[in-house]
Amino acid sequence: MELKVRRIDIEAGGFEIILNEDDAKELGVYPQDRVKVGRRGTVVTSLVNLSQTVIRKGEVGMFIEISEKLGAKNGDRVKVVPTSRPMSVDFIKKKINGEKLSKDEIYEIIKDIVEDNLSTIELASYVTAIQIRGMDMDETEWTTRAMVDTGETIDFEYTTFDVHSIGGVPGNKYAPVAVPIAASAGLKIPKTSSRAISSAAGTADLMEVLTNVSLSIEDIRRIVDEVGATLAWGGAVNLAPADDKIVRIEYPLGIDPHSQVLASVMAKKKAVGTDFMVLDIPMGPETKVPNEKVARKYAMDFINLGERLGIVVEAAVTYGGQPIGRAIGPALEAREALMCLEGKPVSNSLIEKSTDIAGMLLELGNIADRGNGKDMAKDILRSGRAREKFLEIITAQGSKGIESSEDVPVGKYTQDLLSPEEGYISVVSNRALVKIARAAGAPKDKGAGILLYKKKGEKIEKGEPLYTIYADSKAKLEEAVKLAKMLKPLKIEGMLLERIPSYKK
Amino acid sequence: MELKVRRIDIEAGGFEIILNEDDAKELGVYPQDRVKVGRRGTVVTSLVNLSQTVIRKGEVGMFIEISEKLGAKNGDRVKVVPTSRPMSVDFIKKKINGEKLSKDEIYEIIKDIVEDNLSTIELASYVTAIQIRGMDMDETEWTTRAMVDTGETIDFEYTTFDVHSIGGVPGNKYAPVAVPIAASAGLKIPKTSSRAISSAAGTADLMEVLTNVSLSIEDIRRIVDEVGATLAWGGAVNLAPADDKIVRIEYPLGIDPHSQVLASVMAKKKAVGTDFMVLDIPMGPETKVPNEKVARKYAMDFINLGERLGIVVEAAVTYGGQPIGRAIGPALEAREALMCLEGKPVSNSLIEKSTDIAGMLLELGNIADRGNGKDMAKDILRSGRAREKFLEIITAQGSKGIESSEDVPVGKYTQDLLSPEEGYISVVSNRALVKIARAAGAPKDKGAGILLYKKKGEKIEKGEPLYTIYADSKAKLEEAVKLAKMLKPLKIEGMLLERIPSYKK
Repeated sequence: MELKVRRIDIEAGGFEIILNEDDAKELGVYPQDRVKVGRRGTVVTSLVNLSQTVIRKGEVGMFIEISEKLGAKNGDRVKVVPTSRPMSVDFIKKKINGEKLSKDEIYEIIKDIVEDNLSTIELASYVTAIQIRGMDMDETEWTTRAMVDTGETIDFEYTTFDVHSIGGVPGNKYAPVAVPIAASAGLKIPKTSSRAISSAAGTADLMEVLTNVSLSIEDIRRIVDEVGATLAWGGAVNLAPADDKIVRIEYPLGIDPHSQVLASVMAKKKAVGTDFMVLDIPMGPETKVPNEKVARKYAMDFINLGERLGIVVEAAVTYGGQPIGRAIGPALEAREALMCLEGKPVSNSLIEKSTDIAGMLLELGNIADRGNGKDMAKDILRSGRAREKFLEIITAQGSKGIESSEDVPVGKYTQDLLSPEEGYISVVSNRALVKIARAAGAPKDKGAGILLYKKKGEKIEKGEPLYTIYADSKAKLEEAVKLAKMLKPLKIEGMLLERIPSYKK
Repeated sequence: MELKVRRIDIEAGGFEIILNEDDAKELGVYPQDRVKVGRRGTVVTSLVNLSQTVIRKGEVGMFIEISEKLGAKNGDRVKVVPTSRPMSVDFIKKKINGEKLSKDEIYEIIKDIVEDNLSTIELASYVTAIQIRGMDMDETEWTTRAMVDTGETIDFEYTTFDVHSIGGVPGNKYAPVAVPIAASAGLKIPKTSSRAISSAAGTADLMEVLTNVSLSIEDIRRIVDEVGATLAWGGAVNLAPADDKIVRIEYPLGIDPHSQVLASVMAKKKAVGTDFMVLDIPMGPETKVPNEKVARKYAMDFINLGERLGIVVEAAVTYGGQPIGRAIGPALEAREALMCLEGKPVSNSLIEKSTDIAGMLLELGNIADRGNGKDMAKDILRSGRAREKFLEIITAQGSKGIESSEDVPVGKYTQDLLSPEEGYISVVSNRALVKIARAAGAPKDKGAGILLYKKKGEKIEKGEPLYTIYADSKAKLEEAVKLAKMLKPLKIEGMLLERIPSYKK
């Protein structure tokens, strides 16, 4: 069928067209069927949408992606013929039916995801099916490899190291401390991190306060060559691009298939040629890992998948029952990480966690003997060499002129939240703190966040400040304070927990 | 956040807006998050899409549905604030996790489906989850009732009857024969049918050759009062409107959750107040029901669900190994049904199936004694009373002036397909015949289809016609003939099936 182009100048997120209902009937196609659209030798497979009114008979509405691909202008004529669904749809149905997918089938699905050949419906069905049916380690390995092979890769001539946290605990700024410790001892660490999706600050968000994080593959290679490490944003490089497209489905559903967590992390490591990595698994009631059993499952699966991919993985199950350090939010966390590197007083949890992980890296790299890594890491941190290395890294990436914790600009609107009574902190809610920090503007407003003065088990007097909320705007500060008063992220109890009266009511 | 409206005059299929990426960051929302959009006291919850280029900072792109709801014109200012996901999304996750849903949870989901509160991603995830996890009979009943309660209903003061086929066999035009048989004996049958989705003709498509099928609820009530039955298109009335929205997801995935098949059929019956119904379950290798076990499962589940809803269901497992009658395609089937009513020679399979089902209705309605329904149905058919009743029905619905099988206009382009050899028909492929009929233009081109001369077990001579393909256009006829030569829907074998030579090669 020949149709006249009518451009619709918005993005559809893939190749999509709109047909008039009569033309669609004539072609025998329904919404979400595929058609081939051809013009001057270029043919694009596209998804069908219908319109009763907007697109007239004889017209085809074309979203930006396809009209650009075809170079089609308003009034141009194109040929539209029905075509069948990609084979991947059959493979998705196989997974729905609970069958194991073959290597070729998984490669086909991942290729179609990367090339935008699957519709939103098909992709949502796939993610739901792997959430319910699961994938075994073969399927997970094939998914990982397919994700690597459909993106860019970096090849280093030397052995490289990496650290990764599966997340879930706020204030988790161990990487800007641990990476320079290990790098200053000679390890090569091309680390990329993500931005916050549902948290208050990803490592990339906090690094962006201090330096440029949008590095190309060439930048990463050059900087690792020169100074030994990067702390870059993974989203700027096209590593395992299937991941982003899958996350776009997982996020609105709030699901996170186990096999996809594994594949997504390890594909990005494999793509930068990681040889050894330390995996941080924060465990606690409000993290992704509620107990030892789940932690062990994560650890074993990552180690197993690593073996299949030629990556040596060591897992660290870490305490995630409350924030790491005392700062939450990009600038506050960047400042706290700098303070830690500068040897200024910071929360023990940050020093311990960072040197634990750096120590594991040093042992994996045969720089420290087994059991001595942590001490060596602490020595390096105390010596100031880690701070120097950190400044080298941020300068190489493109410094923003901040070289000391005192220069970090934090939110100029602040409010202290005071303790309504005397007592001990019995509960610190990760989730509530994240919600409040986000209400204050984090991660988008870099200066927004929370600085905790008291953590679990610490004593507080009535009227003493529990924490300060920071914001870049007055309105958001008020919003966050309102939320904080509602959520009460810290609970205070006297040492006397219950008093049982001697008389009955 | 206040934003300036920029209208995007295409349908989004729900309330959807497009934000500039910077504004979205500022609001802290991601694609597929919800926002409330307000203007002059009207507030609409809408899904967020992002644009880097098309929608500028400070603007909000508004698709037709929401701009009409808000009465917003280009340049109008609206207020946009983030809001949370509907609770239904949590219930969908519950089903993903394999938990049973409560009545309230199912009602909430169905309400949100009908009101377009769920995104495509959420709906696709729901359909996939119920396909994999299934629903028990409680959940299926609640789904059915929720589907009824969210649509229109008809209340008859008298007992009504219905027939329904779960489909899967081509040429299944039993209803236009069975319904007038039963109605002429005094039963009240407000029958609604669907159009073809993946078949060559739905009952509504073939009835449309002869009469108007788009009836309102008032039309249906009046016509059933006056002549005893309708043969209308279900899509014209707003019965169980959730069904259409669910089918829009099932169709592109090619999945059909068992519980949803049950709910979808029974909701439409419950909505028109059916008291007794006969369910046709065609069984055969290329139908939805491959064997007796599956047939029994369908039958028992429909009967059980019927009991819960106060509908007496009797199931008929029928032979679906090849087409019913000899005609496939709207006009050819309408003609064959008329021929059957007129007492002209037609395939036994059509007479037997129609009178079997009509007989069951007559027995359910206590008009015939148990065991005598079929004989009574045959008598009524032979007497010409069923033909009279059929003409009354199509006249009441709005006749197109066709009163005899000879007047039915069929495709004017035809080609006979000849047998390449002498032998017996050993295989008749339902699927291949449907594909060929659709290639010829069915169901959209009413005259298109196939007329079979030979069915299973019949003898054919070399060069004798196997079937004729009909089409309304020459191009489609050629397309269908090409496909027919490739698919070979009928297989011919000599009585000698294999000859084993007496010597070894």
